[in-house]
Amino acid sequence: MTAYDANNIFAKILRGELPCYKVYENEHVLAFLDIMPRAPGHSLVIPKTPSRNIFDISPDDYAHVARGTHKIARAGMKAFKADGITVQQFNEAAGGQVVFHLHMHMMPRRDGIALLPPASRKEDPKVLEEHARLLISALAES
Amino acid sequence: MTAYDANNIFAKILRGELPCYKVYENEHVLAFLDIMPRAPGHSLVIPKTPSRNIFDISPDDYAHVARGTHKIARAGMKAFKADGITVQQFNEAAGGQVVFHLHMHMMPRRDGIALLPPASRKEDPKVLEEHARLLISALAES
Repeated sequence: MTAYDANNIFAKILRGELPCYKVYENEHVLAFLDIMPRAPGHSLVIPKTPSRNIFDISPDDYAHVARGTHKIARAGMKAFKADGITVQQFNEAAGGQVVFHLHMHMMPRRDGIALLPPASRKEDPKVLEEHARLLISALAES
Repeated sequence: MTAYDANNIFAKILRGELPCYKVYENEHVLAFLDIMPRAPGHSLVIPKTPSRNIFDISPDDYAHVARGTHKIARAGMKAFKADGITVQQFNEAAGGQVVFHLHMHMMPRRDGIALLPPASRKEDPKVLEEHARLLISALAES
């Protein structure tokens, strides 16, 4: 497998070299909005440990990412009055991975509304700010 | 949210009332082949604790499911000479869920080969037996 590239965009977000719409953070993971959401509230949970994907991450760190996803999925359901949540995690290009720092997608879903295709469009920053606020507020209540 | 239905097919598999192509089991989770695979080796990891989905499972049990997926993803990559792995976990019908006992999908992927649509066809039992054998053998080597 290809080695971890420390210049991927999520590594830059972790180092504070690029901004993000942060919704949650703990010792092990960071969660922020996907700026090209496939559904309103589409968030990504990433490990702080440099990890390309499921093939080089430790079981403990993968479990931490899952715990973070568990937490924001419940908040996402409430914040976006969703009917369901789709979780996806892609490994290597053949598996659907585009950014090579492990990330778990959390996508709030509504009945009868399909996901947008990946990377369809960049969301308006004002909308993203509001969605981050909604998620953070739902997390504070949980 | 609707309550857990103890008569869903995965609950029956856990109770031994229905068979499955088991590939892995520990104290917390069971992993077996999807009999309508979207890709060769498509497996499901489920918690032993009755859980409808991410909304009623404990963070600990969700982390156990992730650890099980982490383990069989690596075996799946080797067993099926895959180029990547797609992980999915659906919550409520709007989120893509069909069987209402929490399950995480692990799908070995090959470059340029799309997933079959969900529930396209039942796989030949002989093929499933062979795929379970390949996964169990790769797990034993890991």
